[in-house]
Amino acid sequence: MSEILKNHIKKFVKISEEEFEEILTFFTVRPVSKKENLLQEGQVCKYHYFVLKGLLRKFYINEKGIEQTTEFAIETWWMTDNIAYEHRLPTEFYIQSVEKSEILCITQDNQEKLLGNFPVMERYFRFVYQRAYAAAQMRVKYLFSLSKEEFYFELLRKHPEFVQRVPQYLIASFLGFTPEYLSEIRKRSVS
Amino acid sequence: MSEILKNHIKKFVKISEEEFEEILTFFTVRPVSKKENLLQEGQVCKYHYFVLKGLLRKFYINEKGIEQTTEFAIETWWMTDNIAYEHRLPTEFYIQSVEKSEILCITQDNQEKLLGNFPVMERYFRFVYQRAYAAAQMRVKYLFSLSKEEFYFELLRKHPEFVQRVPQYLIASFLGFTPEYLSEIRKRSVS
Repeated sequence: MSEILKNHIKKFVKISEEEFEEILTFFTVRPVSKKENLLQEGQVCKYHYFVLKGLLRKFYINEKGIEQTTEFAIETWWMTDNIAYEHRLPTEFYIQSVEKSEILCITQDNQEKLLGNFPVMERYFRFVYQRAYAAAQMRVKYLFSLSKEEFYFELLRKHPEFVQRVPQYLIASFLGFTPEYLSEIRKRSVS
Repeated sequence: MSEILKNHIKKFVKISEEEFEEILTFFTVRPVSKKENLLQEGQVCKYHYFVLKGLLRKFYINEKGIEQTTEFAIETWWMTDNIAYEHRLPTEFYIQSVEKSEILCITQDNQEKLLGNFPVMERYFRFVYQRAYAAAQMRVKYLFSLSKEEFYFELLRKHPEFVQRVPQYLIASFLGFTPEYLSEIRKRSVS
């Protein structure tokens, strides 16, 4: 299963089998059940997660007590509360598995040591953060320029497999819809 | 003036004076007048910009023909359309100076060469992107959780110097307000 991380690293940098074996020792593998919380509001955010298999989501509970999903992570995606992780602070977020998943976890200390021992991994993480940042900038643009309905259809057009895979009530939670409203839009688009 | 880049790099990594002199050769300095466009919609995004002095903003023109500002960059901040820059694509954005500014510019080719010649700069850019990503994630959370009014007051509380420095019609363009509405909120908060 850890092959998935190796192949992802190799997309960006060259590493040998021996190097990868050593890199892997900085991580722990964690099998996660469906709907298990990896992180909860108020906890210090200790880990950066890499999805080997499955699906995670990140959400916070808004002032109305409703779960607002802000991100998903599927295979080969990284996820954490980046500010809380870097500065070892309590988080405002939850990270929860949507499906039964298998996750690699690394602490901030270990990530720092890994980067110290394997400078080539600076390049890997530079790419990871650069692309994640570019995607987040696009997200901000969409939040301004598209209505929630338009964003749903954009998601459906660009990532149909994703919309298929994620339960509809979580798609609704990501878009800031009620599940009922999403169901209405979907009916309207079919008819 | 280029000291500003040197000091910023030194916050994250160790470099010698000689190394910095060489690093600097990958950049060009560009003095920019007030309201000059560095990038325009439809152009291939060739440069990554670092602000030595002044203030830039990034915006797009929405379907109503209104400029929606999505980001600002002050001294020591980097700015570009990251997806278009990485993939050498035409951009949907404008990057424009708000004040008379002085900017360092680097092309994608030169940035790649710089990272090849100075692997320590991978660490620098890893930090730059990591923090920018964390800030963008916070921005997404605010876009969901705060009303535009609340976001304005959050901005005022956290970055008063910024709100002072940027013309009010651009703060309005950043928040998605009309300038009139912003003026109304400000009056309300004073009274």
